[in-house]
Amino acid sequence: MISVSVIYPNESGKKFDIDYYCNKHIPMVQQKLGSACKRVAVEQGLAGATPGAPAAFIAICHLYFDSPEAYQTAFSPHAEAIMGDIPNYTDIQPMIQISEVKI
Amino acid sequence: MISVSVIYPNESGKKFDIDYYCNKHIPMVQQKLGSACKRVAVEQGLAGATPGAPAAFIAICHLYFDSPEAYQTAFSPHAEAIMGDIPNYTDIQPMIQISEVKI
Repeated sequence: MISVSVIYPNESGKKFDIDYYCNKHIPMVQQKLGSACKRVAVEQGLAGATPGAPAAFIAICHLYFDSPEAYQTAFSPHAEAIMGDIPNYTDIQPMIQISEVKI
Repeated sequence: MISVSVIYPNESGKKFDIDYYCNKHIPMVQQKLGSACKRVAVEQGLAGATPGAPAAFIAICHLYFDSPEAYQTAFSPHAEAIMGDIPNYTDIQPMIQISEVKI
């Protein structure tokens, strides 16, 4: 199992509409990716490790697939629609990586 | 539900022993935290979003709890043992944050 992790740095002066992200963007992504996407996890950063410290990341999303190839096959035909929706909820440039699920 | 996310930047010249992390460190952490820790997820960064790009993070771990207070209560008595084990698998300073699980 692999995870496509989409990680949004918590940058001051930038916007991130968590309601749009959870209620519009992610459901649209799931609909486009279909059954290739096995599971989605989304979390919203609340705080850093020390009292009063901000979270380093405003949102972290993991999309789970059987393999990098399964992700590419599912994502490529819908890349434009998915990427094109990003300005509707944020002006932050996400960090994206492919990871192997270990636990 | 909240997640305590422990995120290790992929820094060149640094070590990260994923086998020790998955087979020794995480089981020890789970044993110390007990039933307050509802679930653990660990992934290992493989690649960035563009061909040939490295993953920004060598490992991402999420530990799930009912609340920030449940985490603090479970973690505090074992902080020294848990933090003291870090040099056994890495010399990377992790980024730690508390997040709200949205999806």
